[in-house]
Amino acid sequence: MSLKDLIRDVPNFPKQGIIFKDITTLLKSPEGLKNALNELLELAKDKGITKVVGIESRGFILGGALADKLGVGFVPIRKPGKLPAETISESYTLEYGTDSIEIHKDAIEKGDKVLLHDDLLATGGTMEAACRLVEKLGGEVVQITFLIELSFLNGREKLKKYEVKSLITFQD
Amino acid sequence: MSLKDLIRDVPNFPKQGIIFKDITTLLKSPEGLKNALNELLELAKDKGITKVVGIESRGFILGGALADKLGVGFVPIRKPGKLPAETISESYTLEYGTDSIEIHKDAIEKGDKVLLHDDLLATGGTMEAACRLVEKLGGEVVQITFLIELSFLNGREKLKKYEVKSLITFQD
Repeated sequence: MSLKDLIRDVPNFPKQGIIFKDITTLLKSPEGLKNALNELLELAKDKGITKVVGIESRGFILGGALADKLGVGFVPIRKPGKLPAETISESYTLEYGTDSIEIHKDAIEKGDKVLLHDDLLATGGTMEAACRLVEKLGGEVVQITFLIELSFLNGREKLKKYEVKSLITFQD
Repeated sequence: MSLKDLIRDVPNFPKQGIIFKDITTLLKSPEGLKNALNELLELAKDKGITKVVGIESRGFILGGALADKLGVGFVPIRKPGKLPAETISESYTLEYGTDSIEIHKDAIEKGDKVLLHDDLLATGGTMEAACRLVEKLGGEVVQITFLIELSFLNGREKLKKYEVKSLITFQD
């Protein structure tokens, strides 16, 4: 069974007319979880990565495991007010209004070679802000990985400076 | 360096007078992450565990990695409204008022041998509710693990029916 076959469509979530791509059906499958992580490891190894940064909260699930497999540390990027120590913040645009994300100031060292991970690439706004956070702290974004990419939303355009890899692509 | 030495005290977070135990300093250390996961694996192996359930959102970081190391699937327990498909819910008591958590109805199969993981054992209310969710779906709670236990809050008392293991204990 392919990774794509393990993703469940949930109609009308989080609102009417949206078809949500549910990753929990992949995660609960031992083969799905193992194969997804092995594919991410294949993409990331031999790049000299020194830290994996995962975005709250679904990006934590594979992000933590991938950091362990690469033998490096894991850093969370979180919603405002969740990280306890000193942070820096970046805003990004939503359909209506803006939102922001934070990282601990001491999470990245100058020269860190960073892999950024999240579960889903939609419009790319969150990941673009995450890249700015890493770069503000002196880190280099070496690779960006997603479990799923909704390619019809063209989020790659915002991230074209970077190497972007997705395990599963939905074209409509 | 011991795991405990990698935990950072952050005074007055999330409110005045609280000393927050920050796990991000452990997670960003390659040795800290690796050693914590190896200790969790040591505790969990040979128990016939068939699923790891992690509690949003810090419980996702080591929970996902531990599921992969055990060769089983991972299931998230989340705050209300976050899981897209059909869920069941359980409430628990906070200092003032109540909160609740949810799990997908099809996340656990009858007879699943479940390891529940979260980052911190404080009063135990969230984990007790999480156990009820798993048991409602026919799962057996085989082990509960925490990265940190605040033993002076006596959360173990609420979980005394279960095997509870913590990697790091703070006694005051």
